[in-house]
Amino acid sequence: MKALRFENSRLSVADVPAPSREGEAVVRVRLAGVCNTDLEIVRGYAGFEGTPGHEFVGVVESAPDAEELVGRRVVGEINAGCGRCELCRASDARHCPARTVLGIVGRDGAFAELLQLPAANLLIVPDEVTDERAVFCEPLAAACAITERVSISEEMRVAVVGDGKLGLLCAQALKVLTRARVVLVGRHQSKLDIARRRNIETLKAEDLPASLDRAFDVTVEASGSASGFATALRLLRPRGTLVLKSTFHGTTEISAAPVVVDEISIVGSRCGRFAPALELLRRDAVDVDSFIHEVFPLSEGVRALEQAAAPGVLKVLLRP
Amino acid sequence: MKALRFENSRLSVADVPAPSREGEAVVRVRLAGVCNTDLEIVRGYAGFEGTPGHEFVGVVESAPDAEELVGRRVVGEINAGCGRCELCRASDARHCPARTVLGIVGRDGAFAELLQLPAANLLIVPDEVTDERAVFCEPLAAACAITERVSISEEMRVAVVGDGKLGLLCAQALKVLTRARVVLVGRHQSKLDIARRRNIETLKAEDLPASLDRAFDVTVEASGSASGFATALRLLRPRGTLVLKSTFHGTTEISAAPVVVDEISIVGSRCGRFAPALELLRRDAVDVDSFIHEVFPLSEGVRALEQAAAPGVLKVLLRP
Repeated sequence: MKALRFENSRLSVADVPAPSREGEAVVRVRLAGVCNTDLEIVRGYAGFEGTPGHEFVGVVESAPDAEELVGRRVVGEINAGCGRCELCRASDARHCPARTVLGIVGRDGAFAELLQLPAANLLIVPDEVTDERAVFCEPLAAACAITERVSISEEMRVAVVGDGKLGLLCAQALKVLTRARVVLVGRHQSKLDIARRRNIETLKAEDLPASLDRAFDVTVEASGSASGFATALRLLRPRGTLVLKSTFHGTTEISAAPVVVDEISIVGSRCGRFAPALELLRRDAVDVDSFIHEVFPLSEGVRALEQAAAPGVLKVLLRP
Repeated sequence: MKALRFENSRLSVADVPAPSREGEAVVRVRLAGVCNTDLEIVRGYAGFEGTPGHEFVGVVESAPDAEELVGRRVVGEINAGCGRCELCRASDARHCPARTVLGIVGRDGAFAELLQLPAANLLIVPDEVTDERAVFCEPLAAACAITERVSISEEMRVAVVGDGKLGLLCAQALKVLTRARVVLVGRHQSKLDIARRRNIETLKAEDLPASLDRAFDVTVEASGSASGFATALRLLRPRGTLVLKSTFHGTTEISAAPVVVDEISIVGSRCGRFAPALELLRRDAVDVDSFIHEVFPLSEGVRALEQAAAPGVLKVLLRP
């Protein structure tokens, strides 16, 4: 089958054997999304070799012990736990120390004609959700997961810093799920406008008034930059919570003193459960259509990832 | 009156006018403790000029509107709010943006014969608590405050990193208040022995077995060093909480990725309420006697602070 491979620090489209893990479902990929994590992988930052890609929608070709899935359109949770450790037994494969992660850790991913996952990871996509929307389920689930980590209520003020894909999804998901007052802070008018059309207040990062310092109960760092972190800290009230959402490469300098003096909480948040995200997509409660920059055939995968890395580009999709 | 002054980057004992803030209580200091924050101040890191010192026990000389305090032995909470803002009205002077802090921000402190605080900040010391123990009320309150920020239950595993005064107080307070399994990690056998005598498990930082990686539900960084932060992170289980307790000078490099991937919470914790700490001292529930390295007269304050900064020294006290 055809797959986009990252091997020996080089990205190329190749013919490879179909995946053959025993006991797992096989999914024929219909559409896959390129994420910043994929770009980090092909820069060699993540130590992964193989087929990247973890955002997908596809149709199940075979599924031992889950025949009812065969022929159904699905999305899939990307962490596959060992199934035996304390965390897996508590249904938390997301933190299993021996887990594999689709296209990220120890498991070939979605930039291919076929992929494999345990059948338990797959969720059927409702008919009213198009492929072009379903493919956003994984990043939207990650945005929704913030509410698993921080309790946000209607009267609270929330600032999301960063107007890339992640920030736009976080702002929209938080607005819909919590009804809190959500403000998106970013640098690009065209991206901010996507949020504004969904009735989210927006602010240019360079115009932040001093009156907003310490004005927010919760801030979300979704920019992946040290300056975004500093902004998120500055906007936060004493005893507020800063949600760290982006796994930017390398280290960032933080000053411990303000965290201690203002008794800030910094809370890391990663993957989320897919069901709430699928429900938001079914209700058309968030705009993902505006994110799509271009759809490439898988055979042009190398060019697609170059395009995805270009400034100002939101989502690039790959169709096998 | 006599006071230890830090002015124009220079520390000296001087004769200064008695403090005269209208409406506040006047306390004659019996004993004051030297804290690492004081050492930062006299290194010029904190931007404070005047009389440092915020750990004290003394006797009330006068107290407008609180005559019942006159002649009583007291300790005092160190933050004095504006009394008018939203936070002060919610009884949280500790985070009032216009607050003064005894010997730290905008208010002369305890390394003097007399100090002033609002009468509302003062707590009467029970007779059974000696001056030499009562003077530890402020740092012990800060240690107890961890339980205000993080819910710790009996079955949890807690590691405190750092065997200085703060770490020793945190380990003891957490052990007594939560009955959790508490382990103190440090570098100095003689300091670790203080905790060990109170039935706290101890480990040398250089001997930490790999089997303890990710083994703790809560870790407390009380070492004030970047390596201590790294140790506290390494010991923490996924979705665990790292309590940042020490306001070390400057910035520290943190890698955002493990915080996000393991969904860690980093929680800053600063000052605490005095009442729970006084109660622990009354019950002799924590050992502070072993911390006392030397008691200097206030006239030898300069030498006392030099001594407090020497390696291996725990608590230096000043007696006016």
